[in-house]
Amino acid sequence: MGKRIVVALGGNAIETAIGTAQSQEESIKKTMESLVEFIKDGSQLVITHGNGPQVGNLLLQEAAGSTKKNPPMPLDTVGAMTQGEIGYWMELALDEVLAENGIDKTVAAIISQTVVSKDDPAFLKPSKPIGPFYTKEECDELKKEHPEFVYVEDAGRGFRRVVPSPKPIKMLEVGVVLAMLEKGMVPIASGGGGVPVVSDGKGGYVGVEGVIDKDFGAAQMAKDVDADELIILTAVDNVCVNFNKPDQKALTNVTVDELEKYMAEGQFAAGSMLPKVQAAIKFVTAKPECRAIITSLDKVADLVAGVPGVGTIIRSK
Amino acid sequence: MGKRIVVALGGNAIETAIGTAQSQEESIKKTMESLVEFIKDGSQLVITHGNGPQVGNLLLQEAAGSTKKNPPMPLDTVGAMTQGEIGYWMELALDEVLAENGIDKTVAAIISQTVVSKDDPAFLKPSKPIGPFYTKEECDELKKEHPEFVYVEDAGRGFRRVVPSPKPIKMLEVGVVLAMLEKGMVPIASGGGGVPVVSDGKGGYVGVEGVIDKDFGAAQMAKDVDADELIILTAVDNVCVNFNKPDQKALTNVTVDELEKYMAEGQFAAGSMLPKVQAAIKFVTAKPECRAIITSLDKVADLVAGVPGVGTIIRSK
Repeated sequence: MGKRIVVALGGNAIETAIGTAQSQEESIKKTMESLVEFIKDGSQLVITHGNGPQVGNLLLQEAAGSTKKNPPMPLDTVGAMTQGEIGYWMELALDEVLAENGIDKTVAAIISQTVVSKDDPAFLKPSKPIGPFYTKEECDELKKEHPEFVYVEDAGRGFRRVVPSPKPIKMLEVGVVLAMLEKGMVPIASGGGGVPVVSDGKGGYVGVEGVIDKDFGAAQMAKDVDADELIILTAVDNVCVNFNKPDQKALTNVTVDELEKYMAEGQFAAGSMLPKVQAAIKFVTAKPECRAIITSLDKVADLVAGVPGVGTIIRSK
Repeated sequence: MGKRIVVALGGNAIETAIGTAQSQEESIKKTMESLVEFIKDGSQLVITHGNGPQVGNLLLQEAAGSTKKNPPMPLDTVGAMTQGEIGYWMELALDEVLAENGIDKTVAAIISQTVVSKDDPAFLKPSKPIGPFYTKEECDELKKEHPEFVYVEDAGRGFRRVVPSPKPIKMLEVGVVLAMLEKGMVPIASGGGGVPVVSDGKGGYVGVEGVIDKDFGAAQMAKDVDADELIILTAVDNVCVNFNKPDQKALTNVTVDELEKYMAEGQFAAGSMLPKVQAAIKFVTAKPECRAIITSLDKVADLVAGVPGVGTIIRSK
C-alpha cells in the first residue's frame, strides 16, 4: 500500500460565499478533482475539513428559527450536524470524481469525536472565530440576545464570534479510519477537528461547547492513524514570512526550530496561518521521520508529480 | 463471532416531545442500556434509526431562520445533518453504556447514502410523514409560505407534512459496516434509511428530495451486510391484528404468507406498522433461512435471554 496521507481542507475548499448546498457541492467537486491525484498516485488518503462557516450559519438559523417546542442545538451537536452535512457532500463529490477516473473505492464520512481536557485553559479564553463577519453595530445588536457570546475583530475584515478552542488529545474513531484504510477505502474524518468531548471519569465522554481547530485535529488524527504525511491545504501556495510586506518571502523547506523562531517574531496570524504551522510542528515533532506540507489546492498536482520547490515542507530537523 | 443483527430503532427510542439535545441524549442513553444486551450476548450489532422528527424540526428552523446569505439546505443535506446529530448522540450514549459494562469497543456513525431509482413511483406520490403534527388551521397557514408542501392526516393525531419515500436499492457504505464488524466495532449506519441518491448515469450519484423509510433502509442494509437477523424495535411488544379493537390479537410466530393475508385485509396502518411488516417480509424473503423480529425496546432483555413468546417473529415459511 502507498504512503498514508492525511489531507486537511480549509474553508477555501468549500465555497461559502453563496452558501447554498449546490454552490458548496460544486466547490467540493473541484476540490475532489485535485485530491483524486493522491489516490491515482497510490496513496492511502484520509480527508479532513473545517466547518467554521457551516457551524456559524447553522447556529444563526437555529437561533432565529427555533421555538420552545423546537429548541436550538448546542455547539457540540451542531458540530456533528455539519460533519454530516459536509461529509455527505464530500462522499457525493468524491464518488463522482472516482467514477470519472475509473476508480472503484468506497468513500465514507465518520462522525468523529475528539477528546479534550476539561482543564484546557482554552475554556477560560474563547479564541476560535466561527460564522459570518459582522459590523460593530451588528455585534452590539446580537449581544442583546446572547450576552454570553464573545466577539473579536478579525484581520480588519470585521467582527466574528469566538468560542473556546481546546487542544485535541485523541480521536475516538481512529480504529474506523484504520479499518477503512486496510480495505482500500477513503475515510472522511475528524471534520471540524472532531466534536470536542471530555472524559466523564467513568470511561465515557461528554460533549462540550467548543470548536477544535481543524488543523490541530488533523495533526492529532495524522499522529493517531500513523500517517506518513500531513498535508494542510489553504488559500496560499506557501507559508510566508513578512506576509503582505515588500520583503515577503515564501518558505519552501523549513525546520521546526526555524518555524519557532518565526513564530516568536509574530510572523504568522492567529486563527489563520499560525494554527497550520503549529499543527505541522505538532505532527513532525510526534513523528520526526515524517514531513508536513502546507500549500494550496492548486499545487496538489505538482506536489504529487514531485515538482521540486512546491509548497512549504516542514521537517523536524 | 456471534450472529450479526441489524437493529432498527423507531422514534420512541429517541424522545422528541421536549426536543432539546439533552432530553434526546437521555432517551438514547436508556435505549443503549437495552441494546447493550445484544453486545453482552456476543452478537455483532449494527444500529440504525429513524430521523423523521429531527428532519422536521431542522426544516422548520431552517425555513424560519434562513436568509438570502444563509439559505436553507435541501432535504438530502438535512437528512445527512440529522444522521450526524443522532449518530453523535448514539456514539456518546453507547460509549458510556459500554464503559459501564466494562466493554471496550469502538462505536461510530457512518454518513450513509442509499441508492433509489429515479423512476420510483414514490416521487409522484409523497407519502412519508416528517416533522411535528399540526392542526388543519396551522397547515393552511404553512401552505401560504410553502404551497408545494403536502400535508396528510395521520392516525387521528393531526396533520403532518409528507415527502416522497422511494424504495432502497442498495446502501453505498456497506463495505464500511463490514470492515467495522470484522474488527468487532459497532457501526451506526443507514440513519433515517440513508440519504436517498440516484445514479447520475456515469458511476456517481445525486441526492434527491425524499426520505427513505428507515425500516426499509434497515431491511436493505441487513440484506447488504448479510445479517442473520433484522430486529425492528417500536412502541409495541408485538405486531397485532385487529389493533385497538376488542378482538385485538398479538402475533408471535408468523410467516410471510400469513402477513400478506393480513396486509390484504388492511390490518396494518400505513406509515406505522405496515412498513415494519413490509421490511420484515423483504428481509426474510431475501434471506429465507433468517428471521425478522418486531418488538419493543422493553422486550430486548427477554429476547436476548431466549424467553419464549417474546415479540413477533417473522419467518419466510
